[in-house]
Formats: sequence, C-alpha cells, structure tokens
Amino acid sequence: MKNESITSRDVDFAKWYTDVVRAAKLADYTSVKGCIAIEPNGYAIWEKIQSILDAKFKELGHVNMQLPLLIPESLFNKEKELIEGFAPELIWTTEVGSKKLEERMAIRSTSETLFCDYYKKHIKSYKDLPKLYNQWCNVFRYEKETRPFLRSREFLWQEGHTVHATAAEAEQETKRMMDVYVWFNHEILAIPSISGKKTEKEKFAGAEYTLTCEDLMYNGVCLQDGTSHYFGQKFSKAYDVKFTNKENKDEYAYYTTWGKTTRMIAAIIMVHADDFGLVLPPRIAPRQVVIIPIGKDDKVNELTNSFNKELNDNNIISYIDDTDKSPGFKFAEAEVNGIPIRIEVGARDLADGNVTIVRRDTREKIVIKVSELTVEYITKLLETIQKDMYDRALERQKKHTYEVHNLEEMEKNLNTHPGFIHAMWCGDEACELRIKEIKGCKSRCILEDGEKIDTKCVCCGKKAKHHVVWGIQY
Amino acid sequence: MKNESITSRDVDFAKWYTDVVRAAKLADYTSVKGCIAIEPNGYAIWEKIQSILDAKFKELGHVNMQLPLLIPESLFNKEKELIEGFAPELIWTTEVGSKKLEERMAIRSTSETLFCDYYKKHIKSYKDLPKLYNQWCNVFRYEKETRPFLRSREFLWQEGHTVHATAAEAEQETKRMMDVYVWFNHEILAIPSISGKKTEKEKFAGAEYTLTCEDLMYNGVCLQDGTSHYFGQKFSKAYDVKFTNKENKDEYAYYTTWGKTTRMIAAIIMVHADDFGLVLPPRIAPRQVVIIPIGKDDKVNELTNSFNKELNDNNIISYIDDTDKSPGFKFAEAEVNGIPIRIEVGARDLADGNVTIVRRDTREKIVIKVSELTVEYITKLLETIQKDMYDRALERQKKHTYEVHNLEEMEKNLNTHPGFIHAMWCGDEACELRIKEIKGCKSRCILEDGEKIDTKCVCCGKKAKHHVVWGIQY
Repeated sequence: MKNESITSRDVDFAKWYTDVVRAAKLADYTSVKGCIAIEPNGYAIWEKIQSILDAKFKELGHVNMQLPLLIPESLFNKEKELIEGFAPELIWTTEVGSKKLEERMAIRSTSETLFCDYYKKHIKSYKDLPKLYNQWCNVFRYEKETRPFLRSREFLWQEGHTVHATAAEAEQETKRMMDVYVWFNHEILAIPSISGKKTEKEKFAGAEYTLTCEDLMYNGVCLQDGTSHYFGQKFSKAYDVKFTNKENKDEYAYYTTWGKTTRMIAAIIMVHADDFGLVLPPRIAPRQVVIIPIGKDDKVNELTNSFNKELNDNNIISYIDDTDKSPGFKFAEAEVNGIPIRIEVGARDLADGNVTIVRRDTREKIVIKVSELTVEYITKLLETIQKDMYDRALERQKKHTYEVHNLEEMEKNLNTHPGFIHAMWCGDEACELRIKEIKGCKSRCILEDGEKIDTKCVCCGKKAKHHVVWGIQY
Repeated sequence: MKNESITSRDVDFAKWYTDVVRAAKLADYTSVKGCIAIEPNGYAIWEKIQSILDAKFKELGHVNMQLPLLIPESLFNKEKELIEGFAPELIWTTEVGSKKLEERMAIRSTSETLFCDYYKKHIKSYKDLPKLYNQWCNVFRYEKETRPFLRSREFLWQEGHTVHATAAEAEQETKRMMDVYVWFNHEILAIPSISGKKTEKEKFAGAEYTLTCEDLMYNGVCLQDGTSHYFGQKFSKAYDVKFTNKENKDEYAYYTTWGKTTRMIAAIIMVHADDFGLVLPPRIAPRQVVIIPIGKDDKVNELTNSFNKELNDNNIISYIDDTDKSPGFKFAEAEVNGIPIRIEVGARDLADGNVTIVRRDTREKIVIKVSELTVEYITKLLETIQKDMYDRALERQKKHTYEVHNLEEMEKNLNTHPGFIHAMWCGDEACELRIKEIKGCKSRCILEDGEKIDTKCVCCGKKAKHHVVWGIQY
C-alpha cells in the first residue's frame, strides 16, 4: 500500500521531501527561478497558521499594519551592519518601463529600516510607547540553493516590530515572543522545539542578541524555526528613533523584532510526514476529518450527511468525499493529504452496525459501533492524535539528543545519526569555526539555564562558558 | 465642535480627504515615493474587508493560493496586449547584490501571466475544471500622481483567477463575482454602487470584456471599485492553457479574473466621512462601540465593565476607553476614528438612571434609561445606522444622477455638480474622445439592461446603441 510516487524517507530524505510536497499538492516550482507556487493545500495550512498566531499576537496587544515592499538604497545604508549582512541577497529595482530610476530600491528582505523610519515620525513621548506592531507580508532573499518552503527566494512571514521606553521592557518582549513561538510549535504544530540564544557569530545582523527556536527533523538535521531579536538602541540610533522620557529628557527607544515564516510548513513535513505522504497535527489541519461513503446507499448517505453536519456544527472541520473516484483512490488521497481522521461508511458494515475509523498518524484501522460514532469520540481522538504526534516527535528527538565531551564523540554522533548535540563551549569563535569543519556542524543555540555538563570547552579544552546545542542545519 | 485639524469637505475636498486619512490615523506617507504606510486603524479596516470577502469567496467554492511576486520579462511578453497596457507602469528588478540579473523581472502589477503559466501545467482534462483560485497580495504600478488608498504605487488586493471548460460557465463566473462585489458594497460598505460593462476603450488590456462597479463620491466624482474580466480564450491561447474536453479533443480553456483593492477604504471615506472625521458603517467597523466612563466611580465602572463584556459576548466589537485622557478628548477621538456608537457613562447621569448614546453618523445624542441599555438596543441601533448610511448615500447619489440628451446639458451638469450622467451613445470611440474634452469626463459603464432614454447618441446624434453612465473619474 506504499505510495508509489513517494521515495522512502529512509532511502533518500531529500527526494522524499520534495515527493511529499508534490504528492500532497502543497507547492510547485514556477517559471520564476527559486520561487514557488504555494498551492491551495499548502496555502490552507498557512492560513490556519496565520489565524492562530495572529489571534495570539492580538491577545497580547499587538496590532497589524503594512509598510512598503521597496526600500530606497539611501535609507537601507543608514544601518551598516544590516545591509552588510543582507547585501549579497538583495534584489534591486532600477528601471520603470524603459526609464532608469533616480535611486535604486531593494525589495524588502526584512523591514527594520522601514519600521524605524516610520517610528521616527510617530514616537514623541514615553506616552506613545510601547508600540506593538506586526506585519504579515512577503519578503525576498536571493538564495542560491532553494527548496520549497525550506528556503525559497520569496517567502511569506510575519515580522513583529516593537518599540519600548526601557531596555527591560524590550528584553521582556523579546523573550515573551520567543515563548509564544515555542508554545505554538509545541501545542499547535506538535513539534518539541528547543530554544535559546544564538552565538555572536550566528545572531541576526545588527541585533544585540537573537533568541531562536530550533526543531529536529526526522533525519537529524536542525531547522531554525522562528527568531526574536533584541536590538537595544542600535537601530534607534541609526534611524534617530527618540522619545522624551519621564524625566523629560531625550532617549533613544529600545527595539525588538521577531518573525516566523512559511518554513513552518517544511518543519511540519520533516517532523511528521511519512512514506505515505503528509501527516497533519489536528490543530493545524485545514480539514480534520474526511468521511468517505462506500457505494450508493440511502442509509450510508444519511449517516454520512448527518454526521458531517454534526461535526461541522461542533467546530470540527469535516467534509464528505462524494466524488466519483473509487474508494481506494479516495483513501489514498486522504492519506497523502494528511487528513488526521478518515471515516469509512460502507453499506455492508453499516448493516452490521459498524463504521471504520482510520487514524492517519498511525494508519490504525478501528472498527466501532455506529452508536459509538459521536462528536465526543472524534474530538477525543483528534486530541489523542495531537498528543501522540507530539510524544513520538519528542521521543525521536530525545533518542537523537547527545551529550558529548570532545570532538571525537561529536564527530561519531554526526556520522552515525546527527541530532541535537549538547556540549560545553568556551565562547571563542575559533572553536565554532573548527567545529564547523565536521560536516558543517554549527551552534544552534546557547541554553540560557543549561546544566553545566563539563568544565572544559568541547573543542579547545579551555574553561567552558556556555552549554550549547550543536547540529547540522538546513 | 468642528475638528480643527480637518478642512471642511465643502471648502477643499482633496485637502479634506487627506486630513481625514491623517486625523483618523489610517495611513501616512513614507520615505518611499508614492507608497504609503497603512497604519493600524486603516489596516484593521482592510482585515475586516478581507475576512468578509474571503468567507464569501470560499462559500462560493474558491480557494486561496500564492504565486510569485516577480515575473520574468520573457513570460510577460507572451501576451502582447497585457504588457502594452502595463508597460509604462512596470517596475523592473535588474540586479542582485552588485551583479546583473540574466533576465530582468517585473514586480507583478497583476498576475494573469503567472496564473496562466501555472494552469498550463496543472490542467489536463475537463475533469480538472473549473479551477476557482484567488490570491491576496500586494501589487505595484508606478503611478505618477498618488493619493493614499486612492492611487498608490503599491496596493493590496485580491485577484481571483478562474478557468472553465465552457465559455458560458466562465461568463457566468464573471457576472457572479461582479454581483458579489456589488453585494459587498451595498450590504457591507453601505455604498450604492452601480455596475455594468466597460466600453472597448476602457476595458482591461487583453480582456474580451470588463464588468465594473462604480461608486459616486460626496463631491460627485466617480470611483471604479472592483472589476471582473472575461478573457474568453485569449490568454489561454497565448499561454497554451489547454484541456481535453468531453469529446476527447484539445480545447483552450476559458478564463476570468476579478479584483477588489485597498481603494475600498478611499471609497468608504469619500462616501461616508464628514468634517468631524471618519464615519464607518457598523458592518465594516473594526470597533463598533466605545464605552467612555466619566469620572472615577464604582457604579460607573461596574456598568461599563459588565455591559462591555455583554456586548463582546454577543459578537458586538466593543471596548472601554479608560485611558487617562479627558472625556472631551475621548469623545473627539472616537468621533474622528468613526466608531459607530459611543456610550457615555457618567456618575451624575447614572444617579438619575440615565446613560448617553451618541450615533457617529448623525452625531445625535440620545439619553436613555439604564434599563433600556441592552444588547438588543445596541444591535438594533447598529442596524439602523448601517441602513441609514446606505439610504443617505443613495439619496445623495440619486440627487446627482442626471439624464442628458446633448453635450450642452452634459457640460452644464459637470460644471454645476458632477455625478452619474446617463446618456445614450452610438458606440463610436470618437464620441468618447470628444466627451472626454469636457472636464475629462469618461464612460463609466454601459448599463446592460439600461432603458433606452433616447434614440440618438448624446454626442454625434447618430443612432444610439448603448445606455451609458458617464462621469469624472479618480
């Protein structure tokens, strides 16, 4: 019953990934190099992500706004660190019709420059603070190698940009939003992300520091899946974002930004999907239940229609597949699309008083009495699936989480099955560079309250400063 | 009590418009020429527009997807009519970092080329049809003169792109979506739009025909506020979008597109706002009710909190303004922001058993007994305001709708107070050009079932073919 169009993930993970993306109709390549079409099945997941995250942002007091797509070069140049970080990936508009523009403009790769330019005009006093603004939009980074959702030249994201009257409040916001991201991954995506601080080398260009959340994929590779940056006054000085504080003195504002992207869809696939296609955690599934009537039968139709309506009336997103495809085809399609629960209603089963439930995550078939088929049953099963998916991902993550004390151990783990590698670090960039020579292994994050697992740096043997998680990254 | 920062709309309509945009904090200019910042108050209206329109699209079977922002020149060139129409307004990317791109790419000004390129790959058989796809995104047109929301180089919109197996079905979709737009304007925005077909001269580049909905602004100027295009097989031939029909023969697909933009916010302002600021129809207002407690008083707070909760529990979007600004400041702020209903709760009034309700649309103060202050009362008042706003807009529109039979009459109306000018037309472009000499007056739309109000063309006197609505346009 294996889906013939999908390569096994244990045989060729990269090919398996693109096979799943294509088979589940999440995205497709386009005539625009490095840019994808996010197809309806993929976009519906993004809409669900947006609706849940957006409601959470608003609950915390954030509001949305929209700034321009294009950034004039002179404006971008004000913050040197930022432009140097992004310069090679920026794409520039230089012509209109057949005429040259007076000044070239970059397509936003991120919007710090525009938000600071906006805040400069709109913040006068501490009474105007904090400003808790967010933007949902597209951004462009000219990546050399691209993969659907994982690394695309254009991608969709949200970027939060907040300004505060004190450093303490801004740092609290930086942490609070990272906590939201981790909550979202754990509770909604069923992904047991870890979080911590990026090293100086890996932090966002121009930030004082960067918090990150990191996911472990099925193949042991790590994925950065949301960052929250504390800028202190660096950007507000470059862009002159000042306010009058309570002591009636001018002060530069404290600034944070945080973002999460369509890359989350890549994480869902690489954590949960299998050789039969996509597997969606119920809380993020655009369609949670499919009911498949087998054969033309009044009783089958009656049950199918009434139960489908009952589910929808109770906020479970259910639909009936009553197309004229064969039942086998419908089963396979529901499976490849990752619909969490499939209900098969056949005339013969029904005569015996039975219906069949199939869990997508375990592919387990459960025959139950018609009388047991209630909204409560489905609600409970969706919750069970959500929890089990998280637990399995966590178990796998634990299995591939290693503690190492020297480079030999690190190399051995990376060669056998990579994962989250815990090791102490002296804080010296030279050691990060040395470790990168081992299969490109990088620091993922510094665990801020990490246990001291050794006294010495895993690389140079000097006094250890930080408990760092290392890994191979996408 | 007139808002000092807002010019009177009868004195200088253009200045009044930008004053309202600024005073209600809907949008602001940016360092990017011709591009605006849509501020939280403006963006919240857009979010509300999106949520209602999107739900309607989905109810009718449409799904959302996302195609790239950039269009390679070679792809764009395939459809000559389209590129000729848009060529002067296209902005081109030509460089990445410091390197030249091999081929320049335009920022989308509309996405027909990309959708056709996508459909070409994804449509094989009549069984794949129809495809009812929509995209919410930003587009860019390098306009020379810009005005916030009305005409901005970058704007936000939705663009529906549907493909059908028969011309009849595609034409039905073209009409159906125009009906949705008119429904939305009438029922949600309280704007009594008219609709009809564009003339050959005014239709969308490359379309077989264009349906449009047109709104009449307070000053008598017309605004195109949504278009739906029937392309027949023109684009599918240019982009090779073919399918195997039921007779097992290759056939080019039938294509429609339809779009509505952030310009709707301009229409809301220019139809409903007044010298005191924005006036929002309750169904599109992001916040429908503001409760303003006057003075610190336990009973005031108790009523304020409990009634606010009751409203929110009943899906009326209400909030309490308990900032430490003065009551007068809060009243003015609620007014300039266009909140449909303001409830003032003061200790003295309350002792007498009264609260004060203020309608934003009429600015009428209504003192009612506390016992009358119920969810039902507010629900009914919101409905009344919605209806009254539509009725007043319709009345004004009727007042400035004229029937003319010669150019002298037309000119007289345009000079006194412009509006929707009904007149017969022979169908000859020369007459359209001649009429345009009168204050730039253009055909807005041909009324498809329009009464025959004359036998002769208003311009040349030859035999009349169409009942056309003419007007001065934004």
